[in-house]
Amino acid sequence: MSTTITGSATRRVKAALAAIAAVDRPEIWITLRSADDLLAEAVSIDAEVAGGADLPLAGLLLAVKNNVDVAGIPTTAACPGFAYVPARDAEAVARLRSAGALVLGATNLDQFATGLVGTRSPYGAVRDSRRPGYISGGSSSGSAVAVALGLADIAIGTDTAGSGRVPAGLQGIVGLKATLNVVSTAGVVPACRSWDAVTIFARHLATAELAMGVMAGNSRAWPADVRLAAPSRPRIAYPASLPALPSEWAAEFSRQVDRLRASGVAAEAIEFEDFLQAAKLLYDGGLVAERYAAVGSFLETAGGGPDAAGTDPTVAGIIRAAGSVPAHRYVADTARLQELKRAAMARLEGFDALLVPTAPFHPTLAEVAADPVGVNSRMGTYTNFCNLFDMCAVAVPAGEVDGAQFGLTVVGRTFDDAVAANIARRIESTPAPPALFVAAAVPASAGPEATAGAGRPSSSAPWPLAAGAVAVPLVVVGAHRKGQPLAPELERLGAFWDGPVRTAARYRMVSLDTVPPKPGVYRSDDGAELAGERWLLSPAALGTFLAALPEPMLLGSIQLADGSSAVGFACDTVAAAGGDDITAYGDWLADRSAPAKDRSIWRDVGGAALVGFSRGERR
Amino acid sequence: MSTTITGSATRRVKAALAAIAAVDRPEIWITLRSADDLLAEAVSIDAEVAGGADLPLAGLLLAVKNNVDVAGIPTTAACPGFAYVPARDAEAVARLRSAGALVLGATNLDQFATGLVGTRSPYGAVRDSRRPGYISGGSSSGSAVAVALGLADIAIGTDTAGSGRVPAGLQGIVGLKATLNVVSTAGVVPACRSWDAVTIFARHLATAELAMGVMAGNSRAWPADVRLAAPSRPRIAYPASLPALPSEWAAEFSRQVDRLRASGVAAEAIEFEDFLQAAKLLYDGGLVAERYAAVGSFLETAGGGPDAAGTDPTVAGIIRAAGSVPAHRYVADTARLQELKRAAMARLEGFDALLVPTAPFHPTLAEVAADPVGVNSRMGTYTNFCNLFDMCAVAVPAGEVDGAQFGLTVVGRTFDDAVAANIARRIESTPAPPALFVAAAVPASAGPEATAGAGRPSSSAPWPLAAGAVAVPLVVVGAHRKGQPLAPELERLGAFWDGPVRTAARYRMVSLDTVPPKPGVYRSDDGAELAGERWLLSPAALGTFLAALPEPMLLGSIQLADGSSAVGFACDTVAAAGGDDITAYGDWLADRSAPAKDRSIWRDVGGAALVGFSRGERR
Repeated sequence: MSTTITGSATRRVKAALAAIAAVDRPEIWITLRSADDLLAEAVSIDAEVAGGADLPLAGLLLAVKNNVDVAGIPTTAACPGFAYVPARDAEAVARLRSAGALVLGATNLDQFATGLVGTRSPYGAVRDSRRPGYISGGSSSGSAVAVALGLADIAIGTDTAGSGRVPAGLQGIVGLKATLNVVSTAGVVPACRSWDAVTIFARHLATAELAMGVMAGNSRAWPADVRLAAPSRPRIAYPASLPALPSEWAAEFSRQVDRLRASGVAAEAIEFEDFLQAAKLLYDGGLVAERYAAVGSFLETAGGGPDAAGTDPTVAGIIRAAGSVPAHRYVADTARLQELKRAAMARLEGFDALLVPTAPFHPTLAEVAADPVGVNSRMGTYTNFCNLFDMCAVAVPAGEVDGAQFGLTVVGRTFDDAVAANIARRIESTPAPPALFVAAAVPASAGPEATAGAGRPSSSAPWPLAAGAVAVPLVVVGAHRKGQPLAPELERLGAFWDGPVRTAARYRMVSLDTVPPKPGVYRSDDGAELAGERWLLSPAALGTFLAALPEPMLLGSIQLADGSSAVGFACDTVAAAGGDDITAYGDWLADRSAPAKDRSIWRDVGGAALVGFSRGERR
Repeated sequence: MSTTITGSATRRVKAALAAIAAVDRPEIWITLRSADDLLAEAVSIDAEVAGGADLPLAGLLLAVKNNVDVAGIPTTAACPGFAYVPARDAEAVARLRSAGALVLGATNLDQFATGLVGTRSPYGAVRDSRRPGYISGGSSSGSAVAVALGLADIAIGTDTAGSGRVPAGLQGIVGLKATLNVVSTAGVVPACRSWDAVTIFARHLATAELAMGVMAGNSRAWPADVRLAAPSRPRIAYPASLPALPSEWAAEFSRQVDRLRASGVAAEAIEFEDFLQAAKLLYDGGLVAERYAAVGSFLETAGGGPDAAGTDPTVAGIIRAAGSVPAHRYVADTARLQELKRAAMARLEGFDALLVPTAPFHPTLAEVAADPVGVNSRMGTYTNFCNLFDMCAVAVPAGEVDGAQFGLTVVGRTFDDAVAANIARRIESTPAPPALFVAAAVPASAGPEATAGAGRPSSSAPWPLAAGAVAVPLVVVGAHRKGQPLAPELERLGAFWDGPVRTAARYRMVSLDTVPPKPGVYRSDDGAELAGERWLLSPAALGTFLAALPEPMLLGSIQLADGSSAVGFACDTVAAAGGDDITAYGDWLADRSAPAKDRSIWRDVGGAALVGFSRGERR
């Protein structure tokens, strides 16, 4: 799959360098690679593409949060004394690079990824991309602002309590946080090892999904019944009350919910207390001990000791205090967390996802300085629970409120990444173009490929298919087509609608006298091409679908006009012999729209013809 | 499903009471229910059975480890000061009782389930069932000896580091420990909440599986690709070296491996160090903090304080020390545990299960008294890693060595419970009948039912199907029958062979000119009954199987002679028209054994008849 990203990597690097100089936001970068290095790599990528290399991300400009290893660039985690120079890229970085992405440099963050504000760094507080008196949000502050300003196409963040979402919300961009460990955390400085995730920022969800499909995989196996899409009329839950939101923000959230309802989404308010309680465990309970386990020993040694240069006092205070938590308290809080998770999941029963505001408000730098811990903790109201509950999340821009960017996050169950992304696509608003430099958007046509099943899925296929999730293509010609009466059977199983296809010219089609009406397809040496549609299903969804399939319908391998094959429908011999032949229509929907009288005549004939097909008769 | 347990509950309770008195092993029981209570409940069960109630465990005598709640019986966890009287049964107990099991009483244990020896209890050391100078093994000591002596048919144990397996091994009985949380731990005094399991002891694996199928379920969902059987020629791994085993025990282990090889099992030695390292984390690391989280606060209060009556000094010492473990050490050890698990699972790649000795040796009471911590820790050499790695295990008797009972344990991956049980059935030796009282064995015919798909599976169906795992029946008539060339396709997907079936008399069968040869089945008004076999598959296995199925084979609903339906094979219209009709044989295997010349003649005719089937021709 070759990319269709506009322009050469060389041209794009030059434009980015000019823009980086022009925006004068030095606090974004902890290390910016030299122009020489960047141009040399860009030339090399352009040569590879010219040579026909299959680089789906060729020339995409990538910023990397500086708690994620990039070979040769010091990993500081925003603490100069902690710095080490890794010999190898983190796995997430390596995967993006091997697909043609070009690392611009390493970005600033709240030290040790401890914070949601973007101000806790000796490299400077990262300022909002549009209103410099406001915070960027954090902890992935530099990455988010680099993307928001159009300096980079995509950026790697990390997210334990919201660090990959809060800055996306405040900066009006997309933050994609997959189910835990779907992206490898190898080569990442841990914050809380149990709940750390590597995330992607981009200005468009399609770009973020493309990058996530490349970056994820090979770390935590997808389940055999993974859902690949939301139903066409999804059901979403949202918090019945909205703590921490100013009234204008709450009103905007309500308007967004109303807009979704108008688009065919069923939205219901749920009690949110169990979700909020989990956040309390993170800030006030024993779980913070994970932060000490990650970098506590560094802070206790000379390099990171109380007098060491470059440790942020707020961050160091939080982590040092975590060293004295007893293990039995951590164990008890973990047990409590599991209880809260059970209760929260019970509230989500029957819903496809949870919708929340991404950030509850947008503070100024001064407001954070006045109350660094309190403001930070309120910022995480709608993000903290997510990783603790092993959920996935997609933060998308959704307009503006009160001069600030307004963001919504679709939170999905474990492994419901495709469902959450699917719903988020309904919400995503197009951000205003950055003022200085527009890095090329990745067209939606550059989508990932399915890893299983024959035939290439459409460009909008869900990113988990590029990241190791297995799907089987199922071709339907009749009542299971999109919008037809039986399509909900497939939607309930999480099937993804992959667009129209045509069969090879080797099938005939009859009209079956079933309720609802269905076509019956059978192989024939005197066959024709038939119009159909392809769905992608998990293996378990396909097995469940087959187990419920009534006589005379059958499933097996069929050939498509493009030479690929897929699982498709057939009808049994008795039904094939007994139905009215409608092959000439070429498309069951064409027959279905034929005048009713014609069809009833055929049915009469068909009923009489229901004599069965047996070997004896044919000799 | 009515049970076929021999004899009335009343008769069995009387026999048990007599035997309990005769064996004179008061240390087995912490609370034995009164004869009046037992007989009243037995009469009530007999009346229910006489009234036609469907009680699969009717009258099965059950002993319950006294860290598991039985309504009205004090839960002591073998610590008198800890006792409370629960108002409700633990969920595991409630499930067995509602299926007709009768609780005899509550059994002794190593206090707070902390130990593998059976001596750490103020209610007395539990002695070996045959050699009273030896230990019972623990911590589920009373439960194991009650079953070994034939006082109870089944007993509930708990297992964190081996407490449901070590005493089974030493007592020559079966210990069944499912994947974590497949059995609810509600109503159980936690030992280490993250790794506690409720287990079943029985003298026969069939009895244990029957009880486990009733006791488990509704707690942790089975995956959509759950394996339901081992392949007919399984591959097992075993430790390359056998630490802690005396030479005679090691020699016996080798003989058992050789015996398995002779029976068609592929057995290979693997490096075992990663498994052993996990045990070190349990005993010498931070993980023990879970024990303090469970009952530490009790031991710090007046009731359980240093001077309180009835706290075992060894147990109290271990748990009190666990109170000072810092949380960051627990977190670091948990991370190390995950590393070890990854390495261990990599070693098991390609194997169906791991075979280990259950207990490494059988110490005397005096040996344990001389070194209570050291002996205890060596006892867990082959059990400790299991729950830490989220594995399941089946401990079965395997003869004797050096005067002791010798036991083997089949350890399976998470959710491979049916695979492990399947392999364990190959190993299980019949224990000698208890000297005093033989509680009725449950015949294998009293097996559990599948929960999904039509048609009742055979009696030996794997217990996860009774406990919520979903399977789909697939009926095959040809090359996928047991022992036929394509059966391994189903075995690799974890399919369980459920025995022969017959289709309804509405199908015809042709011989297809495929490699390997296959029959083609199609529905016909002029059909006959066909011989077939039923497999049970997970939904994902069925979907995967369908995705790989080549033309002209199809799958759909077929009717069986017993009126049920299942997924079954069909062939497409072209193949149906082109194959030699072999319906008259009624059984593809019968045709396959026909003289070769007959079959080649048919094939010539069939080849000429391959003209396709089209609607046009039929009109």
